[in-house]
Amino acid sequence: MSRFFSARYADLTPYTPGEQPQNRRYIKLNTNESPFPPSPGVAAAVEAESRRLALYSDPECVKLRKKMADVYGLGPDQIVMTNGSDEVLNFAFMAFADEEHPLAFADVTYGFYPVFAQINRIPYTEIPLKSDFCLDPADYIGLNKTVVIANPNAPTGLALPLGDIERIVKSNPDNVVIVDEAYVDFGGESAVTLLNRYENLLVTGTFSKSRSMAGARLGFGFGSKKLIADLNTLRYSTNPYNINRLTDAAGQAALAENDYYMANCRTIIENRAWTTEQLRSLGFRVLDSQTNFVFAESPDIAGRELYSKLKDAGILVRHFDKERLQNFNRITIGTKEQMQTLIDTIASITGGDKP
Amino acid sequence: MSRFFSARYADLTPYTPGEQPQNRRYIKLNTNESPFPPSPGVAAAVEAESRRLALYSDPECVKLRKKMADVYGLGPDQIVMTNGSDEVLNFAFMAFADEEHPLAFADVTYGFYPVFAQINRIPYTEIPLKSDFCLDPADYIGLNKTVVIANPNAPTGLALPLGDIERIVKSNPDNVVIVDEAYVDFGGESAVTLLNRYENLLVTGTFSKSRSMAGARLGFGFGSKKLIADLNTLRYSTNPYNINRLTDAAGQAALAENDYYMANCRTIIENRAWTTEQLRSLGFRVLDSQTNFVFAESPDIAGRELYSKLKDAGILVRHFDKERLQNFNRITIGTKEQMQTLIDTIASITGGDKP
Repeated sequence: MSRFFSARYADLTPYTPGEQPQNRRYIKLNTNESPFPPSPGVAAAVEAESRRLALYSDPECVKLRKKMADVYGLGPDQIVMTNGSDEVLNFAFMAFADEEHPLAFADVTYGFYPVFAQINRIPYTEIPLKSDFCLDPADYIGLNKTVVIANPNAPTGLALPLGDIERIVKSNPDNVVIVDEAYVDFGGESAVTLLNRYENLLVTGTFSKSRSMAGARLGFGFGSKKLIADLNTLRYSTNPYNINRLTDAAGQAALAENDYYMANCRTIIENRAWTTEQLRSLGFRVLDSQTNFVFAESPDIAGRELYSKLKDAGILVRHFDKERLQNFNRITIGTKEQMQTLIDTIASITGGDKP
Repeated sequence: MSRFFSARYADLTPYTPGEQPQNRRYIKLNTNESPFPPSPGVAAAVEAESRRLALYSDPECVKLRKKMADVYGLGPDQIVMTNGSDEVLNFAFMAFADEEHPLAFADVTYGFYPVFAQINRIPYTEIPLKSDFCLDPADYIGLNKTVVIANPNAPTGLALPLGDIERIVKSNPDNVVIVDEAYVDFGGESAVTLLNRYENLLVTGTFSKSRSMAGARLGFGFGSKKLIADLNTLRYSTNPYNINRLTDAAGQAALAENDYYMANCRTIIENRAWTTEQLRSLGFRVLDSQTNFVFAESPDIAGRELYSKLKDAGILVRHFDKERLQNFNRITIGTKEQMQTLIDTIASITGGDKP
C-alpha cells in the first residue's frame, strides 16, 4: 500500500479470483467455465466488428438489448448490459443499499458480495445457511434489508424453488431483492417470470457460464424500468461505454444461436448427473447441484489435499479456505471425457477402485 | 428514479457522452475518434481469440502489460490496464482522494472529473483557466490537494510544457498528481519520463484516440509499483476480469504494429494544421491544439447554431452548453477529405467565400 492510499479503503480485502494459469495446460475445472466453444457465428461477428473499432461502442446497447428482450420476453428498458455480472452486482449494491438499507446474504455464497459491500461501505449481515447448506427462506421473510440471493447458490450448487424466492420478494416490499442467476440455465427456476409483478425485484445474469463467454465479459440486469434507470445513472457516472464493440457483437451473435447454448446446458446436466453418481460411488458426499459444478467432500481425504493432488495430476478444481467449506472442493462440470479423467484420477488418489 | 435508489446518489448528475447516432451516417467529428481503422493484425488476432472466449481472461494481463512495458520503457508492475481510461481515472479518484485529500482540477477540462468526484463523494475545487483558456501552473504549485490535469487539455486542446507538470508534481509531494494523457500522442510531451523520479505521479492513457480503438475500451495507468498496487486493490474489489479476451488480443496486436498508429498521428497533426489555417481564414478563433481536435469559435455565428447547421448538413461536432464554452465547438480532426467537406460546409453556412 502506498502512503497515498485513501484510509477509506485501507482495510479492504479484495476478491481472490480462481487461478488462471497462463503456462501449463490443465483440465480446468476451477472457475465454472463452459467446456464448449462459442457458437459458430461468434467468430465471424467479432472479426467483422473489429474493423469498426475506431468508433465508440453504443452506450445504450440498443441492438443487444432488443435481442435480449426477445429471448427473455421483457421490454428493452427493463434490461441493462454490463461488463460481466460483477459490474451489475456492484452497481446494484451501490444503488439499492446503504446505511438505511443494509445488506443481507448467506454466509456461504458468492465471495464477491462482502467485497462489494466493503468497498461501498455498506453494512451487511451474513445469514448462516443451515447445516445441510440449504438456505432457509424463513430467515429472509420480512427482513427489511436489501437481500442478495444467488439462485442457484455457489459454491454449493443448491437451488431455491421459485415459490420461496417470490415469498421473500413479496415480504420485503420496501427493499430491493437481488437474485443472482449466474447459474440458472443449468436447472434452476428463473425469477424473470416475477418481474412484471414486483417492482423491488432485480435479477442478474451472465454470458460467462451457459453461453461460453467468460472471456467476453458480458453480464446483465433485469428489473422494472425505474430500477434499471437507477443502475444506468451509476453506469453513466462511471463508464458509459462499459460494453465494448466486440463483446456487443459476440453477445448478439450468441443470442441468434441460443439453441446451441441451451443444448450444451443439457449436456452439462447429463455430465453432472454422471459425475455426481461416480463421486458418490467413490464415497463422496455431493450436494444436489443445479449448476455447472458440484460441491463435494470425501471422508477419505482432506479438501485441500485432494485439491493439491489433483493439481499435481494436471486437474484444477477450486478449494475454499473458509471454515465450513474446508473439506469440500468445487468441481466444474466439463466434457464427459474430462469428467472421466477426473474420476479416474480421484480414484487413484484415494486408492479406491475405479467405479 | 425509483423509491429504492440510495440517497447517496440522489443528486448525482451523470456524464453526458457525445452523440453516438446508430442510424443516419454522419461525418463524425464529435467524439475524437480516429478516422483510421485499426492496424491489419487486429482483426486476425481478435478472430483467433474469439475461439477461446469460453475461458476467463487473464486478470493480470501479463502479456499485454509486457508489451506495454516494452513500448513505454517501464516495468510491467508500473502498469495497470483498464476498461477505457475512464475506469483508471475512477479508480485513481477513489484511491488517492477523499475528505483529507480533496481534488483540484480546471473548470474547463474533461467533463467526467466532477462526476467521478461526486459519485465517490470527494470534495473538489474547480480552478478557473485563464481568460485565454491556458492553465496557470502557479495555481497548482504547493496546492496540497490531489491534482488532476488533462495534458493536453480537452476541450481546449492546449498543452502544458513538461517542465510545468514537473514543477506541479514536485511541489505537491504529499498528494498524487494525476496527468491524463488521453491525447498526448498528437503533439504533447508525456510525463512518463518523470515516473521513475516522482512516487506521487500517476499518468493515464487510452487506446481510444491515437490507436483507433475507442470501441475496444482499453485504457491504462502508469505509476510507481505502490500506486499501481493500490489501483489493483480497487480493481480486484470490483471487476478483476475488467479486460476481456478480445480487447486484450486487440491491444497486443496494436502494440506490435505501433508504427502504423504513430504514422496516423502525424497525418492527424498535418490535417489539424490545415484545418486550423482554413478556419482562421474563415475568421474563426482557433486555440492552438496539441490534440486530435480543434476548439474554435466564429464571430459570425453562435456555437450552438453552427453545431445545429452542421448536423443538418450531415456533420457532427461537439457543442458544450457550459457558459465559458458556449460560442465554441470542438471539432475532431478526421481525414483530409472529411476536413475539406467540413470547411466547405462551414463556408456555405457562414456565407463566407470558400478559402
